[in-house]
Amino acid sequence: MIKAGIIGATGYAGGELVRILLGHPEVEVVWYGSKSYIEQKYADVYQNMFRLVEDVCREDDLEALAEEADVIFTATPQGYLAGILNENILSKTKVIDLSADYRIKDVDIYEAWYQIKHKSPQLIPEAVYGLCERNREQIKEARLVANPGCYPTCSFLSIYPLAARGYIDLSTLIIDAKSGTSGAGRGAKTDNLFCEVNENIKAYGVASHRHTPEMEEQLGIAAGEKVTLNFTPHLVPMNRGILITAYASLKEGVTTEQVRSAYEKEYEKERFLRLLPEGVCPQTKWVEGSNYVDVNAVCDSRTNRVIMMGAMDNLVKGAAGQAVQNMNLMFGLPEDLGLSLVPMFP
Amino acid sequence: MIKAGIIGATGYAGGELVRILLGHPEVEVVWYGSKSYIEQKYADVYQNMFRLVEDVCREDDLEALAEEADVIFTATPQGYLAGILNENILSKTKVIDLSADYRIKDVDIYEAWYQIKHKSPQLIPEAVYGLCERNREQIKEARLVANPGCYPTCSFLSIYPLAARGYIDLSTLIIDAKSGTSGAGRGAKTDNLFCEVNENIKAYGVASHRHTPEMEEQLGIAAGEKVTLNFTPHLVPMNRGILITAYASLKEGVTTEQVRSAYEKEYEKERFLRLLPEGVCPQTKWVEGSNYVDVNAVCDSRTNRVIMMGAMDNLVKGAAGQAVQNMNLMFGLPEDLGLSLVPMFP
Amino acid sequence: MIKAGIIGATGYAGGELVRILLGHPEVEVVWYGSKSYIEQKYADVYQNMFRLVEDVCREDDLEALAEEADVIFTATPQGYLAGILNENILSKTKVIDLSADYRIKDVDIYEAWYQIKHKSPQLIPEAVYGLCERNREQIKEARLVANPGCYPTCSFLSIYPLAARGYIDLSTLIIDAKSGTSGAGRGAKTDNLFCEVNENIKAYGVASHRHTPEMEEQLGIAAGEKVTLNFTPHLVPMNRGILITAYASLKEGVTTEQVRSAYEKEYEKERFLRLLPEGVCPQTKWVEGSNYVDVNAVCDSRTNRVIMMGAMDNLVKGAAGQAVQNMNLMFGLPEDLGLSLVPMFP
Amino acid sequence: MIKAGIIGATGYAGGELVRILLGHPEVEVVWYGSKSYIEQKYADVYQNMFRLVEDVCREDDLEALAEEADVIFTATPQGYLAGILNENILSKTKVIDLSADYRIKDVDIYEAWYQIKHKSPQLIPEAVYGLCERNREQIKEARLVANPGCYPTCSFLSIYPLAARGYIDLSTLIIDAKSGTSGAGRGAKTDNLFCEVNENIKAYGVASHRHTPEMEEQLGIAAGEKVTLNFTPHLVPMNRGILITAYASLKEGVTTEQVRSAYEKEYEKERFLRLLPEGVCPQTKWVEGSNYVDVNAVCDSRTNRVIMMGAMDNLVKGAAGQAVQNMNLMFGLPEDLGLSLVPMFP
Repeated sequence: MIKAGIIGATGYAGGELVRILLGHPEVEVVWYGSKSYIEQKYADVYQNMFRLVEDVCREDDLEALAEEADVIFTATPQGYLAGILNENILSKTKVIDLSADYRIKDVDIYEAWYQIKHKSPQLIPEAVYGLCERNREQIKEARLVANPGCYPTCSFLSIYPLAARGYIDLSTLIIDAKSGTSGAGRGAKTDNLFCEVNENIKAYGVASHRHTPEMEEQLGIAAGEKVTLNFTPHLVPMNRGILITAYASLKEGVTTEQVRSAYEKEYEKERFLRLLPEGVCPQTKWVEGSNYVDVNAVCDSRTNRVIMMGAMDNLVKGAAGQAVQNMNLMFGLPEDLGLSLVPMFP
Repeated sequence: MIKAGIIGATGYAGGELVRILLGHPEVEVVWYGSKSYIEQKYADVYQNMFRLVEDVCREDDLEALAEEADVIFTATPQGYLAGILNENILSKTKVIDLSADYRIKDVDIYEAWYQIKHKSPQLIPEAVYGLCERNREQIKEARLVANPGCYPTCSFLSIYPLAARGYIDLSTLIIDAKSGTSGAGRGAKTDNLFCEVNENIKAYGVASHRHTPEMEEQLGIAAGEKVTLNFTPHLVPMNRGILITAYASLKEGVTTEQVRSAYEKEYEKERFLRLLPEGVCPQTKWVEGSNYVDVNAVCDSRTNRVIMMGAMDNLVKGAAGQAVQNMNLMFGLPEDLGLSLVPMFP
Repeated sequence: MIKAGIIGATGYAGGELVRILLGHPEVEVVWYGSKSYIEQKYADVYQNMFRLVEDVCREDDLEALAEEADVIFTATPQGYLAGILNENILSKTKVIDLSADYRIKDVDIYEAWYQIKHKSPQLIPEAVYGLCERNREQIKEARLVANPGCYPTCSFLSIYPLAARGYIDLSTLIIDAKSGTSGAGRGAKTDNLFCEVNENIKAYGVASHRHTPEMEEQLGIAAGEKVTLNFTPHLVPMNRGILITAYASLKEGVTTEQVRSAYEKEYEKERFLRLLPEGVCPQTKWVEGSNYVDVNAVCDSRTNRVIMMGAMDNLVKGAAGQAVQNMNLMFGLPEDLGLSLVPMFP
Repeated sequence: MIKAGIIGATGYAGGELVRILLGHPEVEVVWYGSKSYIEQKYADVYQNMFRLVEDVCREDDLEALAEEADVIFTATPQGYLAGILNENILSKTKVIDLSADYRIKDVDIYEAWYQIKHKSPQLIPEAVYGLCERNREQIKEARLVANPGCYPTCSFLSIYPLAARGYIDLSTLIIDAKSGTSGAGRGAKTDNLFCEVNENIKAYGVASHRHTPEMEEQLGIAAGEKVTLNFTPHLVPMNRGILITAYASLKEGVTTEQVRSAYEKEYEKERFLRLLPEGVCPQTKWVEGSNYVDVNAVCDSRTNRVIMMGAMDNLVKGAAGQAVQNMNLMFGLPEDLGLSLVPMFP
């Protein structure tokens, strides 16, 4: 059994990790880390875990945890892990970081967008960007995996087949994203109260959201060119789910058939990517609770643009599920072990 | 592998059966029956099943299905199964009926409340009321199981430990229930449109809901006396979940400790019953997607009443999950096989 | 023009007062009091008021406000007003208190349930319980009105016609209430986050909610006997609305016709009480945004109980609307001035 | 008093017309037309109107209604009004059409997108496109007003100040829209059931929604050039509200100051347009129940694009409210008479 520790186990992503790992046949959770609920029973914080988890929450002590765990998941605020991670820890245990600390290779860009001084830039080069469908082989060898952001995961996977083939003019790329409210975390803020979110929709972080450079860097690597794009997230009154609607101009001569074929070739062997039948739009509800990303694209001959769409569960493929997928790869397990989660409807 | 057929696979309870059976290691679904979607791909009706179910829907032909299946689940309108079930079918296959046709032993009461002439009353005596926690041994031997109604399941399990011990005056019993909207089914009715249900709550079927006699009969059997109660269901703007708040006067001399102890003794060995810590109220969200029923009780010394509370997922323990639990018993499998569903939060 | 000041204008009840008073032809709001947003523009806190309210928030200074205002609305935490109100203030201005400080005549009961030492018990006798339908004449003469609680308002009005006539056995009275989340206020608490409330229902304050003694006292006055009842509130995933489902045994010989007639007689001349047609259940959505209370009752001959139901908007008739109705009475204006709010559907 | 008739009074837009007209001091509704509920009490269909509307529904007889009414609102399916409207009717009464029949000047485009043969194309030239902020003077003289679509209203008003000044490259214009579910109407369709919409978001009508040509035509007229754009609507789990997020490249040399100034100049005198403070994003909740459109724009110097945002209530400014605004203009009344609706929050 793999011994797993979770730093930040009482946030929503941490809770989802627990839910998934409880059903994983090769993993045992040995450490429920929490800053806010130390010494409290985990099941008192997340009552769904009553009689399933008997442990109490322990402090977020990475050094101590490294002695006990084969793998550590960190679901912590930006900058936290970068401040405490070091070679000693990585020599003892594998780390899968759900924060943004090691996602962006260009540390200047990280520091500019996150407004944080990076405390361990020397570790960035070895960190592997944990988008399994893209970096599978490197992940298998990694000690440190940067689990991708929720928006970048869904955006990248919706756009990648066309970007990689040079089918779209990336200078025209616009990503309009919609997310459920669990993406905002479990912090007690007025803006996230039920009465403020319910019956409401708004854009936020317009032209300034910190997932932008992550998408630009990854799409740039995939396409072999510098990418600058517009990204606008919106907050939707639902618990889970991200929907991406992305727009780009097709390069001259690219046909509808080529577009469809690109997705087919890219994703036909992917366990968690579902290219929907032509004309069927992704809906977040159809992937809820699962590790799937549903994608599709529509070509508009009037404007010569393609509309690329993707839907996933932000807490699963956008956080905990993808982290477990990464863990499976890192430990030589079947990639989908413990991840055969059937989407729940309704 | 057990071959299972589903009549009414495209309703919400049928869809949930498919979701659960896909994760069951000993079952293969061989027949996706549907009245409305014959010849259509099942995954076109329930897009969450895309790439998970390749079958097309077949007509609701019970005779033909009996030749192919080891067990048939019927999630059909009231009266439908009673009109077509017969000894020949039961001699070939086991039947688990999610409708109300065989739940009520007193056929006059069935006909009075359902306003339907029962077409096969001769089969009622052998049908076992499929509340596993109560009728486990008979279910193991049954050919025909009447899967309990959603409200009766949650109500009975919330009240039973006190009723069976004679701790409450059953003539004072009032059950106030709240249900998510999936309980109303997938029929296209104006009353169930998003804009009619959302931001709204109402009582319905006041003093006339058809689950009333089912509760009365079962509580009556458990308590050894005739029970007449008030039951008021309410429609709540959420997809899943039933919450029961039940009220009764405590018999003279019954103490708070006895009340707590009754639940403890009754449920300490039950896999799917969770007696919450003292003072913690059940919430539907904490059991969503799982087969659990969370219960608790509060004694009010001012009024000498006990408030009994229970929460469950109406589509799981209230329908498909309990049906699979019954199937496990009928086939000699571990009762929780395929049912280790961790509640999803949020 | 009546000059009105609001202490606690940035809570949900305070915001609703502003919404209603903006449409009132005889009132001008001169003071937007707030503890948390002093010196900030009110419209920055409540963006719906952009271009409608230009004022900035001022501190909660009752003495200063009494110099400026003809009437003060206090939507403040329990105990706050009792600590600062005095004869001097009441000699200069009228006060309508939306907190519980002056609702309960028996100060011992107030202190026991609220766990607060009452700081100005000498003012309790002159405070009029501001349920307009019940205490209209006293309100007209009052300097200090205790605006009723949301649950007590809806409960009392649903039960009163039968309680006053001695038609029900009050020792059997049970009130099961369901409320939208705005009733929980705008404080930033984890329990009230969108993801915690959405897709969820729970009971809270079981056998201990502080609105219980208020209902008992008022129903006791109406019925001329001591009342002890069970009250269980539930939190529902919607913004607004309270639904009451109350149960009591009918006294011997009381007929269905008498029950209906009681409501008809009591409410036929009431502007804001709507007795629905027989068989139609109240729904919160049908009164949203208005000052109406919709009521109805069903007699159950099987159990000889009556189920009394009521629906209202907790922020209007349950708080701000009723406060304005009180103000109208206190200033000799038509009772419904500024309150002709048509319910908004959907 | 203006006598008003409503054809299609039992749809959501019709119901909202009734709500608004009940509060209008100069209008009396004399005809509640309905295809589905003839002879039924209107308040039985919309229970919020209990005791407010005593009328029964009448058939949709335009000829008869023209004899009785000074103005007719038609909230009917596409093609219906075009099939029955004629010069005789227009000689007797004014008509405000909430359907799309007379919105598009180019009848070929109408027929191509709506797949309907237009039955009265001779009336199109005289129909005035009823966007009050744009066509105020023509509306005052009109007999027939084509009330704009919900998406076009919000989109046009969000984009117009920049389009009219040539500040944006209209060939790059992309409109990503999000709508509450009341926009889908009150028809009983499975897709609009609570359980299908709740906890879900999807795009629909991608590259094919029928509001596209209406926007293209109106923006084209405003800009003096042919416009071809991408429009993608999304269905959001809320009752009311439309949010527009539109993207376009800024023309060379256009500054952030010019962009802000364009909105300021265009809307400073508009009663129902609110340009929010810099940096504040529109939210649908802040305009709910009102006739406001909240707009704002953000310039992104990295991509040289402007993101234009607008929020409104689809049933008010997007349907019934704008219709009443048009009526006020047509009858020489103050444009905002009966429309001083304060947004309701929460």
